Amino acid sequence: MQLESQLNELGEERLVARLLVGLPIDDSVLVGAGDDCAVVAHPEKEDLVQLLKTDSVIEGVHYLSETDSLRVGWKAVARVISDFAAMGGRPTSLLVTIALRQEIALKWVDGLYEGIRKCTSRYGATVVGGETVSLPEGSANLVSIAGVGVVSRAQYLTRGGGEVGDHLWVTGKLGGSFVSERHLDFEPRVEEGQWIAHEAGANAMMDLSDGLRRDLPRLADASGCGFEIDFSALPCHEGCGVQEALGDGEDMELLFAAPSGDWVSRFRKAFPQVLLTRIGSLVAEERTELGEGGWQHFQV
Amino acid sequence: MQLESQLNELGEERLVARLLVGLPIDDSVLVGAGDDCAVVAHPEKEDLVQLLKTDSVIEGVHYLSETDSLRVGWKAVARVISDFAAMGGRPTSLLVTIALRQEIALKWVDGLYEGIRKCTSRYGATVVGGETVSLPEGSANLVSIAGVGVVSRAQYLTRGGGEVGDHLWVTGKLGGSFVSERHLDFEPRVEEGQWIAHEAGANAMMDLSDGLRRDLPRLADASGCGFEIDFSALPCHEGCGVQEALGDGEDMELLFAAPSGDWVSRFRKAFPQVLLTRIGSLVAEERTELGEGGWQHFQV
Repeated sequence: MQLESQLNELGEERLVARLLVGLPIDDSVLVGAGDDCAVVAHPEKEDLVQLLKTDSVIEGVHYLSETDSLRVGWKAVARVISDFAAMGGRPTSLLVTIALRQEIALKWVDGLYEGIRKCTSRYGATVVGGETVSLPEGSANLVSIAGVGVVSRAQYLTRGGGEVGDHLWVTGKLGGSFVSERHLDFEPRVEEGQWIAHEAGANAMMDLSDGLRRDLPRLADASGCGFEIDFSALPCHEGCGVQEALGDGEDMELLFAAPSGDWVSRFRKAFPQVLLTRIGSLVAEERTELGEGGWQHFQV
Repeated sequence: MQLESQLNELGEERLVARLLVGLPIDDSVLVGAGDDCAVVAHPEKEDLVQLLKTDSVIEGVHYLSETDSLRVGWKAVARVISDFAAMGGRPTSLLVTIALRQEIALKWVDGLYEGIRKCTSRYGATVVGGETVSLPEGSANLVSIAGVGVVSRAQYLTRGGGEVGDHLWVTGKLGGSFVSERHLDFEPRVEEGQWIAHEAGANAMMDLSDGLRRDLPRLADASGCGFEIDFSALPCHEGCGVQEALGDGEDMELLFAAPSGDWVSRFRKAFPQVLLTRIGSLVAEERTELGEGGWQHFQV
């Protein structure tokens, strides 16, 4: 019997890695699977590249059956837009896949659409197509958004460009996204992400969807660096401590690495409402583990 | 109480129409929802346009729990590629969303990936990303493919360009796709579709996924025409009659409208293995209903 014979014995990242083995990749792919978005070149567009991303929200996992469907629609779209923001880009076209059980009330669907419309309008995206499919009884409902975005070829940011000595920054506050239901209404940091890519001289960026504990090592690993964190500096949401800020997930804030410079004061002037916090640095040493589970004691 | 308060009381097309109300559409969208693919312009690419499409296969609907997962992976990708073929285009980048229950065997997933790889390699597409998500117990598994394709701006075909007097043609044979399990292994007509768009002077095209009975009226409606069909000419698969050819669905053949010309003999020379059959014409009269249910008597 195989040691790992079922999905629940293998993490998502190792599962995705299995998929990639043997897949053909051509020269037009600048960034493949593993970053916030894929980046695809246009042979005839020198100054722009396209961003591609797909993301699903699932009933019982990303929202509850009783969640207002308008918020579900907003969240589904906002998650994909946040991935474009994390590359310094913005969304252009979206495809919407809605897979629902037959007994779902039309009122629920209309609310979902309203949330999708609200979020696409807010961020200048266009829904160009999609499909609606019926799920067999007992299935969890699912809303999947596939998006195309655009970003400057010269200035898009991946997780992998960070350099030793870069300071690590986060926008906003961390922790408590589920308890406060912020995960249903968050505003993707599109303008901030574009500003950071253009003005801050940043070297790497990602959005925080799985919590700093899981996401920061991904950015550091991709950049070939270690990291140091000042836990006392972590910007914790009201009612949250360091543990929640590290582990709760779905913060949908930007984490980025940038050299020091005068951009910090300029950022604060450009976005006076947005908290910007330096939480540490990229270093040369092997990465400092942030711990796998919750409520552990962490070393800097 | 509302007359229609649940999804099962509303068809997919009317449901999608509800979504589109109030959605912002900008000038870059040449073809929005409702055709085989969306068509999106590139401001700086004069001669090419992009195709966007998303499509799902669901356990218990599009394949059975016991279906070889390699064939599920092939089918999921091939369906999207067939939609690109139906516009006269070809695929470039794909995003793969795999939503599975936790107890699914890794062996099943590896087979799925193998099928995805086989089909993407065969048609020159590149998987650039995607995600793997866990479904709650009792859910139907789902594989969703979002694809980007490319087609000549001057020569892409929609469902809507057909003209009165155009002949109606289908590639291959119709009917029996489920019984014969062809729906799991079909080869999208990418080369044929490109040839038809470039060489046949065709005015409208689509792929036959829901059966001629449902799909032909869509092409005729979009083109503002009626249609006449010679039922005796329908190319039926072995073991199938006219009813199966009209109603079985998942043929994944091309249906197109083109003026008469010398292209027919050139097509047959270019694709000696591919049956090409004239099944009727677009006409000025109101469309001839092909009937809603199965086993009815049809009028030409």
